[in-house]
Amino acid sequence: MTAVNESAIDLTDEEIFTAHEGGKLGIGVTASLADPRALSIAYTPGVARVSRAIAEDPALAAKYTWTHRLVAVVSDGTAVLGLGDIGASASLPVMEGKSALFKNFAGLDSIPLVLNTTDVDEIVRTLVHLRPSFGAVNLEDVSAPRCFELEAKLIEALDCPVMHDDQHGTAIVVLAALRGATAVLDRNLADLRVVVAGAGASGVACANILISAGVGEVTVVDSRGIIHAGRDGLNPIKVELAGRTNASGLRGGIAEALRGADVFLGLSASQVPEELIATMAPGAIVFALSNPDPEIHPEAAARHAAIVATGRSDYPNQINNVLAFPGVFRGALDVGARRITENMKLAAADAIFGVATDELAADRIVPSALDPRVAVEVAAAVAQAARADGVV
Amino acid sequence: MTAVNESAIDLTDEEIFTAHEGGKLGIGVTASLADPRALSIAYTPGVARVSRAIAEDPALAAKYTWTHRLVAVVSDGTAVLGLGDIGASASLPVMEGKSALFKNFAGLDSIPLVLNTTDVDEIVRTLVHLRPSFGAVNLEDVSAPRCFELEAKLIEALDCPVMHDDQHGTAIVVLAALRGATAVLDRNLADLRVVVAGAGASGVACANILISAGVGEVTVVDSRGIIHAGRDGLNPIKVELAGRTNASGLRGGIAEALRGADVFLGLSASQVPEELIATMAPGAIVFALSNPDPEIHPEAAARHAAIVATGRSDYPNQINNVLAFPGVFRGALDVGARRITENMKLAAADAIFGVATDELAADRIVPSALDPRVAVEVAAAVAQAARADGVV
Repeated sequence: MTAVNESAIDLTDEEIFTAHEGGKLGIGVTASLADPRALSIAYTPGVARVSRAIAEDPALAAKYTWTHRLVAVVSDGTAVLGLGDIGASASLPVMEGKSALFKNFAGLDSIPLVLNTTDVDEIVRTLVHLRPSFGAVNLEDVSAPRCFELEAKLIEALDCPVMHDDQHGTAIVVLAALRGATAVLDRNLADLRVVVAGAGASGVACANILISAGVGEVTVVDSRGIIHAGRDGLNPIKVELAGRTNASGLRGGIAEALRGADVFLGLSASQVPEELIATMAPGAIVFALSNPDPEIHPEAAARHAAIVATGRSDYPNQINNVLAFPGVFRGALDVGARRITENMKLAAADAIFGVATDELAADRIVPSALDPRVAVEVAAAVAQAARADGVV
Repeated sequence: MTAVNESAIDLTDEEIFTAHEGGKLGIGVTASLADPRALSIAYTPGVARVSRAIAEDPALAAKYTWTHRLVAVVSDGTAVLGLGDIGASASLPVMEGKSALFKNFAGLDSIPLVLNTTDVDEIVRTLVHLRPSFGAVNLEDVSAPRCFELEAKLIEALDCPVMHDDQHGTAIVVLAALRGATAVLDRNLADLRVVVAGAGASGVACANILISAGVGEVTVVDSRGIIHAGRDGLNPIKVELAGRTNASGLRGGIAEALRGADVFLGLSASQVPEELIATMAPGAIVFALSNPDPEIHPEAAARHAAIVATGRSDYPNQINNVLAFPGVFRGALDVGARRITENMKLAAADAIFGVATDELAADRIVPSALDPRVAVEVAAAVAQAARADGVV
């Protein structure tokens, strides 16, 4: 475990605010407007022929507009980073950052669309009206459990890729990292008992993808304790989760869940005492992903675990969504996929793991967040899975 | 009158479609993402401080996001160029072209938002939800009379500049050109009787701005003849128009309207016989603006009129909205105007005329559509008028 690299997090207000002046995005024009002839091609009268062609064959919109590579980054500002429900305007710098990452890592264009309504059906209605304007929807920073309903309704209503990144981007990278960790430790996913702390957007999605990937047993713990079918007051999402997790029928809280567990996956923003980590099985794996304060300090976790990962860039094994979402959307858009399937997410995780295998080690279970190969590999794997699943 | 310059309109399908492949816009990233530190400023964790600051003071969104220079180019595709109601997707190449012009002429960023609903209230509701995402709305290619209701409702619902360009962009440039023509002919707006052919979006707006500017008399003719208060079956827009136009109480059709008129303003896409133009007053002014086929061929019109203008780039005196909208929105956004007032439009027309006075002549009553000075002058004049009107 390396020491904290303060330079990566000790940012001054001045440099942050200066870097944000005027926002972080701009429109680039790819058509020539240099002379009257170019103008009459890109605008009237020439453009009329392109419009007429699309009117006759709507499929041509993908070829002659920017929508085939345009992701709408959509948020209602209800669960922004660790800041909570700060509203649409305040979420916009995050969405601009997301758009910047899409461009930087996958060459995809995207527009932030932030909404000052939190009504799920109104958000769906808004995006249905705007459907011809974009090629895919990246949902971002929407609070749970609304995010599950919103994503499901958007997938139903829109014939294009829709993904809530806080759920599935996180889940994909967690699975990739767990594959990396088990490869280092020469273990199998099927033999692992995983404890997921947190049943919000990312907790639910991680539990689901780990089950899909064949993890032996998953137990989810929320602020009220272990989720099991007999617990009162579960919301529909947790009822469903209870039916698919905790096969051993564990009861109690995080202490009971962690005793003898192989993997701790922290997605809860609550602290876990070192003593509880000490009760895990030998050779434990700890992913303490809350940001900026992990559930347990990575150096403390390392005293008991064989592998430790966090969400922070100043420790090794950074679990960062940027490893997943640029390539996932790029792959889906490249082949014109109508939706993002479970197999496409699993393929993305495998592809991230595939890049990591180059230099796999206990402090390098995932590739660097800046590794330019990752999005390329993820996109190719996602595109292939989309074809295999027949959603192209 | 110069001969037709065929090179400007004889575009091949191949060059048009090749130029449109992949669309005409892209996202540019103005923030650095070059290294982990830059990434942690533009995205997490640094961006959280900017989001928190905006949550505390929403006015800071204008400073730290791209919205202060972002125009939403909005259309439902119901009145696209001369193509009519071809739908949202088919309108998108036009809107991308518009965004390209905004960038090219005024340095403004813009995003095309095309909607597959034609319900005015649904469009309003959609843009109200998205209000935090942009700084202004350019309505485009929305059919009349819906466009009047839509613009009015948006102005009411949104605290930002909203302008239907087919109405007011055209009106501003027409007024500028009429100022140019009267300056060349040493005449006064107050002494002119103007016949507006067409009571669609641009016809109504042109009639209104000409009245505001002090034109002596305006008579509007639609497909059923001269609009007057006694005519049956007028829609509310035309009833209002009838109350403010045609003070002489003319009855009949285009022939009766044109006899002895000083100015013909064609915005109707219907042809006007040369014999009728011949009945206008001596020293007549003819603006035949339908595209690509003017109401009367400019060479025919020139046999009877002192000054002729069209919407085409291959004749002199091109009346092109691009002279107005980039500078109008730039000026309004530069000063953070909450709306676009009549005085701001009049100031824009004066500014365009001001640039034309450099080389004013019968075949140069407006500046070239490519003159880079125009948007700068228009923006300055609009900003000043916004301040004077107290809408900043």
